[in-house]
Amino acid sequence: MDKMVYFFSKGETEGKASMKMLLGGKGANLAEMASLGLPVPPGFTITTEVCAYFSKTQGKYPDGLKETVNEHMKRLEKTIGKKFGDESNPLLVSVRSGAPASMPGMMDTILNLGLNEKTVAGLAKLTNNERFAYDSYRRFIQMYGDVVMGAEHKHFEEILGKTKKDKNVVQDVDLNAEDLKGLIKKYKELVKKDSGKDFPDDVNEQLWGAVEAVFRSWNNERAIEYRRIEKIPDNWGTAVNVQSMVFGNMGNDCATGVAFTRNPSTGEKYFYGEYLVNAQGEDVVAGIRTPQPINNDSRNSDNQVTLESVMPSLYKELDGYKNELEAHYKDMQDMEFTIERGKLWMLQTRNGKRTPLAAIKIAVDLVNEGVIDRKTAVQRVQPKDIDGMLHPMINPKAKLVILGKGLPASPGAASGRIVFSAKEAVEKAKVEKNLILVREETSPEDIAGMNICNGILTARGGMTSHAAVVARGMGKPCVVGCSDIEIDDEKRIMKIKDKVIKDGDFITIDGTTGRVIEGDVEKMKPDIKNEFGKLMEFTDDFKRLEIRTNADTPVDAKIARQFGAMGIGLCRTEHMFFGEDRIEAVRRMILANTKEGRKKALDEILPMQRGDFEGIFKAMDGYPVVIRTLDPPLHEFLPKEDEMIKKIAAKMGVKADDIRQKIDELKEANPMLGHRGCRLGITFPEITEMQVRAIMEAACNMSKEGIKVIPEIMIPLVGNVKELQAQKAIVLETIRNVLEEKKMNIKCLIGTMIELPRAALTAFEIAKEAEFFSFGTNDLTQTTLGFSRDDVGKILETYIEKNILKDDPFATLDQIGVGRLIKIAIEDAKKSNPEIEIGICGEHGGDPASIDFFNNNGFDYVSCSPYRVPVARLAAAQSEINKNNK
Amino acid sequence: MDKMVYFFSKGETEGKASMKMLLGGKGANLAEMASLGLPVPPGFTITTEVCAYFSKTQGKYPDGLKETVNEHMKRLEKTIGKKFGDESNPLLVSVRSGAPASMPGMMDTILNLGLNEKTVAGLAKLTNNERFAYDSYRRFIQMYGDVVMGAEHKHFEEILGKTKKDKNVVQDVDLNAEDLKGLIKKYKELVKKDSGKDFPDDVNEQLWGAVEAVFRSWNNERAIEYRRIEKIPDNWGTAVNVQSMVFGNMGNDCATGVAFTRNPSTGEKYFYGEYLVNAQGEDVVAGIRTPQPINNDSRNSDNQVTLESVMPSLYKELDGYKNELEAHYKDMQDMEFTIERGKLWMLQTRNGKRTPLAAIKIAVDLVNEGVIDRKTAVQRVQPKDIDGMLHPMINPKAKLVILGKGLPASPGAASGRIVFSAKEAVEKAKVEKNLILVREETSPEDIAGMNICNGILTARGGMTSHAAVVARGMGKPCVVGCSDIEIDDEKRIMKIKDKVIKDGDFITIDGTTGRVIEGDVEKMKPDIKNEFGKLMEFTDDFKRLEIRTNADTPVDAKIARQFGAMGIGLCRTEHMFFGEDRIEAVRRMILANTKEGRKKALDEILPMQRGDFEGIFKAMDGYPVVIRTLDPPLHEFLPKEDEMIKKIAAKMGVKADDIRQKIDELKEANPMLGHRGCRLGITFPEITEMQVRAIMEAACNMSKEGIKVIPEIMIPLVGNVKELQAQKAIVLETIRNVLEEKKMNIKCLIGTMIELPRAALTAFEIAKEAEFFSFGTNDLTQTTLGFSRDDVGKILETYIEKNILKDDPFATLDQIGVGRLIKIAIEDAKKSNPEIEIGICGEHGGDPASIDFFNNNGFDYVSCSPYRVPVARLAAAQSEINKNNK
Repeated sequence: MDKMVYFFSKGETEGKASMKMLLGGKGANLAEMASLGLPVPPGFTITTEVCAYFSKTQGKYPDGLKETVNEHMKRLEKTIGKKFGDESNPLLVSVRSGAPASMPGMMDTILNLGLNEKTVAGLAKLTNNERFAYDSYRRFIQMYGDVVMGAEHKHFEEILGKTKKDKNVVQDVDLNAEDLKGLIKKYKELVKKDSGKDFPDDVNEQLWGAVEAVFRSWNNERAIEYRRIEKIPDNWGTAVNVQSMVFGNMGNDCATGVAFTRNPSTGEKYFYGEYLVNAQGEDVVAGIRTPQPINNDSRNSDNQVTLESVMPSLYKELDGYKNELEAHYKDMQDMEFTIERGKLWMLQTRNGKRTPLAAIKIAVDLVNEGVIDRKTAVQRVQPKDIDGMLHPMINPKAKLVILGKGLPASPGAASGRIVFSAKEAVEKAKVEKNLILVREETSPEDIAGMNICNGILTARGGMTSHAAVVARGMGKPCVVGCSDIEIDDEKRIMKIKDKVIKDGDFITIDGTTGRVIEGDVEKMKPDIKNEFGKLMEFTDDFKRLEIRTNADTPVDAKIARQFGAMGIGLCRTEHMFFGEDRIEAVRRMILANTKEGRKKALDEILPMQRGDFEGIFKAMDGYPVVIRTLDPPLHEFLPKEDEMIKKIAAKMGVKADDIRQKIDELKEANPMLGHRGCRLGITFPEITEMQVRAIMEAACNMSKEGIKVIPEIMIPLVGNVKELQAQKAIVLETIRNVLEEKKMNIKCLIGTMIELPRAALTAFEIAKEAEFFSFGTNDLTQTTLGFSRDDVGKILETYIEKNILKDDPFATLDQIGVGRLIKIAIEDAKKSNPEIEIGICGEHGGDPASIDFFNNNGFDYVSCSPYRVPVARLAAAQSEINKNNK
Repeated sequence: MDKMVYFFSKGETEGKASMKMLLGGKGANLAEMASLGLPVPPGFTITTEVCAYFSKTQGKYPDGLKETVNEHMKRLEKTIGKKFGDESNPLLVSVRSGAPASMPGMMDTILNLGLNEKTVAGLAKLTNNERFAYDSYRRFIQMYGDVVMGAEHKHFEEILGKTKKDKNVVQDVDLNAEDLKGLIKKYKELVKKDSGKDFPDDVNEQLWGAVEAVFRSWNNERAIEYRRIEKIPDNWGTAVNVQSMVFGNMGNDCATGVAFTRNPSTGEKYFYGEYLVNAQGEDVVAGIRTPQPINNDSRNSDNQVTLESVMPSLYKELDGYKNELEAHYKDMQDMEFTIERGKLWMLQTRNGKRTPLAAIKIAVDLVNEGVIDRKTAVQRVQPKDIDGMLHPMINPKAKLVILGKGLPASPGAASGRIVFSAKEAVEKAKVEKNLILVREETSPEDIAGMNICNGILTARGGMTSHAAVVARGMGKPCVVGCSDIEIDDEKRIMKIKDKVIKDGDFITIDGTTGRVIEGDVEKMKPDIKNEFGKLMEFTDDFKRLEIRTNADTPVDAKIARQFGAMGIGLCRTEHMFFGEDRIEAVRRMILANTKEGRKKALDEILPMQRGDFEGIFKAMDGYPVVIRTLDPPLHEFLPKEDEMIKKIAAKMGVKADDIRQKIDELKEANPMLGHRGCRLGITFPEITEMQVRAIMEAACNMSKEGIKVIPEIMIPLVGNVKELQAQKAIVLETIRNVLEEKKMNIKCLIGTMIELPRAALTAFEIAKEAEFFSFGTNDLTQTTLGFSRDDVGKILETYIEKNILKDDPFATLDQIGVGRLIKIAIEDAKKSNPEIEIGICGEHGGDPASIDFFNNNGFDYVSCSPYRVPVARLAAAQSEINKNNK
């Protein structure tokens, strides 16, 4: 370890902004501000490396640290002209944590350090403000006693409360110096009792106690948990900032405040902030006194007193620093300042947190102002924030009764009366528009009901369960795997924790956060301004990946196109089979015992499918449309109700018992690994034939109307090149037949899903027969990890809780396992077919981290649900920018 | 193509035995016999390369073939002193196929070629036997007309039948020369009518017609099908042998016969064979006349006339050749001979087909006789034959009514009265010993019933379905996936094709072939002689792989040990949970809602498990025992019957409805990918703890009794190194606790199953935490290929039929896909842990082809069901020998 401590003060600063990893965010920015010549209270930063050493050695300091820190204290005394522990002119310092990544409130802070019975008297004399001095000491004991010495926070509050009660006052400020002296005595007794030790008078002991406490707080439980969630490495460590105190609470010529260079909610370009006269920083946050706006722009009522009006020259100075800082950092800044007896001190600056809306506006504005370039703007917005923006959200000001929490499966908020079955939903929808479907889990039979409801809530399933996938496709809010729910179908109630919600009661679900909320809650639709479109335009300058969409209907296709999708990467033909007008024919097809029986039913389905494809080709005029042949286990289509079974039997001229037996035969122990995908097309070639015919007839018809059709046919669940060969033969023959009949010539690519480990492992052979690969990462994750998407909810919860998994592998690609298979497949495929087109159409196609992986591993396109298209565009652009920056 | 035709004749032979690939088996052996100086009718062989060329070019001959063949015909004429097509001294030839691998009866043969109206008259004159000559011509026309010209065989038979009827005779031999001439005329008319062409008189046209027909027959349907089954490559081709005819049917100084150098059924060492006086080879086979034994040893009744007695000097000559040929080929020979007018001709010799029993005896005897070495003996026996030998089999002489066929899941034959439920079986077994359990499919709940029955028959499931795996473990005959069966539980009948079998009716199943047979059929237990043990001893000289067994009970462990298993590679603890005395406690454990509830139930299970392990350690004294922690989906253990639910609820003091709801909650859409394997141990660490405690307490107890215990604990279904770490921590702590309590020190390896693709792909990390890997190839196949073992039956049928798959991947390892994952895993694992022990405990551990793969890819041991141990020993030895021969 070379240099362990970095000094900062106007004119003699050793650090800079780019040293964030070493000095932490706060330390680096203090150094930068000091370098810029801004009035920063001087101090020094102990590096994160010292903390890392401290953690690794279970509490040891590197050799020479003590000496170095002591030297820097001397330097600080010299710079500021006060002395640490001096009775007449005491130096007080703050000791604060400051990690390379922001971890607000997670670690410890000590203020007013350096006070004891002697220095407090000196401070009182010096400031001529005894109450201020003893209040500072009181606050210091409370903070230090809690954080460093382990006395309980609530005990301090109890003593404070009792003192106020005895004195019959309400506010802390109503306690006078004498009261505070009494309080200090009691505080010290408390510390002695709780910790077994005397509160230290030695200021150096105080200093080292605080430094150690900050280092230790890096590994407190909440900090570890926060890092886990935010994916901050445990080995970074925090820096410690020792800084001379300035006080905003010495009198009415003092103030403290927080300001933003632009409005952090809307992104609008004006100076925005709040301040309090005669207050310390914590008072602004604590919410006991109401802060005032710094200027007219920040006002929201007329009787507010602005800083601009009460301290105009200081405000002007602050406004100057604001301009300087934003110009310097080229981004919206969040600044803290204190005015001590008419002198303005800058305590902190950092890139300001902002709403997604503001993030977009600021980024685009800064480009227009010529401050940043488009590339920087694209990097300034988080892809995950965009997703939420496209849907209605709960008004942040609304008061919520949270009933429980599940997985945020499809973003946006929705309210409605609960209904327990899809069939009922269809029925009820005739009189009641607002419904929320609540189910254990959904199945393809529920699609009509799902489509009619405002949102979907399920007790089971993960991020790629049926409900989740379908809801995302529909752009409908959805919360899944809410294991707090118990549904009692008979009593027509659901229990959620200890509440009982009855059929027809109102609830609200928030698919962005996974919350389930009581009653109907006010929602708002974010106002997507021009800036959004502008930012999306910017992404096209940088992204290499093409973005397609998963869409099964013309409506979805149109939405996706509006969002910028350049084609369909996955059109699931089976979703078209569930319409009321056709499900019966589909069922007859499945239940037929002969090829002729199947053909008869297929002949009825053909014109309907052709119609579907015509609509989709039209919506995607000029763009490719990848259509997957029938994929799901056939028994998903089977009738469950006796009435339907009888109806079908009658129509087919067979006994209902025969149908029941057939249904029984079709049951599978593990349908995900059963009779599905290309296995259907191989067992029943006539299905593939009908589907290809429908596709090509539609393509010809639309082409005649002047639409530019680019069909691509995709064979699912191939694990063996011979499966693809067998299906391809049928596809090619049918295409040839249709084109001959229609006397037309339309090119149609033929490719396959790679969604089984064996497909990836034998990609060299399969690629010889395929013009494109589309990775079905849902199924590939399922088989590679051996997790059933339908059942994984509970296990995932345990695994994430026990830190076995970091993310839901169905939401964010498992790059180590599944990713390795993908890399093997692509490398091998390109050896045997260098021209092969590589795409992905699993749920991961809309996940930013996964998109980064796809971008870096030879993919040509990603395909995701329509509402994810903007997210994917942004993530793809960012990934490419990052790649080129490396 | 260099040399297309090879001549053979005593003293001027160009080929030899080792040229099988080029000359086919027959041609190579004819050449070899001729070289040895044996009396072989001269001729020549057209190579398999010519056939391959012919197939590839869709019917063209290589340049120069015609000329070469004509030259060799001239050479043949010269050698034998007859002329092809000559009216006074005609040369007649046979034209026969002969592939590198034996394909009996699959391809075409023409005899007596060279006859026409003129040469037949010459032959009559020359042999002074008009009837013989015209009968030969008649046979030639019939064969050639059918094979070459496409006239239908049955039409010839009709004409022959009508002629005999008109003449009022029964046997062909009762037709005289004039009758035959009339028949010939009619035959020629038939050929003209069926083919539209005249029967050729030109002998060269005859020759080339026959050659082409033989080449074409390589690609007839039955030959292709045969090759598919026997895995003979399609591109090998057949040779064509053109050989001068000799006749065993010219009179009573003629004969023809087949002989073996040792008894092919028993392997006993004596000359064994049959012959017929005045007959052609086909007559011996046709079964119209009963052949006679060649000597006393071959007699099975007293009134048989031996060749030794009627032609003693010729017999002596034959006996001499027999000795010469066996000594030359160093193996039992199957010879064909013909005696033409007192001269002995050797027509063929080849390694004789033999029963498994004979194969073992002959191999061991030849070692004892000093003819071959042990290594050769080990290579002479097919591993698959051994499997059948260890079980009772159906008496080959028994007459069978075959009802249907399923998959041969566990070898051996068994008869019994059918019973439709395991519970009933247990009940009925009190009065009726012989039962066959017939089920749609079995589940773990059926184990007690399965154990009581003689055999198991299921309508569904594949080679690794529950029924198959358990039955093999029990060494009980089992036929699965017999889709001909329809079970009607209500009527208590099963329909099989159109037969109805009632509850209590007798059937027989043959688990070696998959046949289901009506009634009780006579069975025999093969007499396993000393030779079997001897051969097994030989294998130990060569094999490198250690053979362990999959055994869950002391009984299984003992059987396996008798068969030579050197330890247990997989002990499935869950199988111990199904005993009547413990299933209830297990259910209470699963259904408990609290850790305490589970612990209480586990405390009851602990002593039982400990007892199980004690028995197993005892049986495996001195050998390692790999014990897998709980693996199957918990709901397999759940009660289904209301009575049991109520009983459990009462015992647990909860409502039956609560139990029902819990059961419902535990249901999974795809249990194979659900809450099982180490996921159980991670969710409920107390289960792992109990099991490890039972293992280690048992180990300590047995160790105190002087047993050498070598426990190894195996964690199933790991996909992430963190899972293994989490379980290992519990295992290590529990081991430490038990050993401290017992004040003992017993070493226990800790390892993991590799049965998920992700485990294989991240083996580098996992191997750091594991002392051994055991590949669970059943599950690995399931996930890599995306096939559910429970459902795969029907799809497999289609896939094998459509030639998409060659083998059942659950029986024979998919070396390309799954094998690649295995290779990746082993390579990576050895990088991070060079000492790691590698084993396999899936069903593939008993499959010879898979064992070869394991032997060649760094495995230390294979583990298989007890009855498979000898198979594995032999296969392991053969694999190692083959590897070293390469």
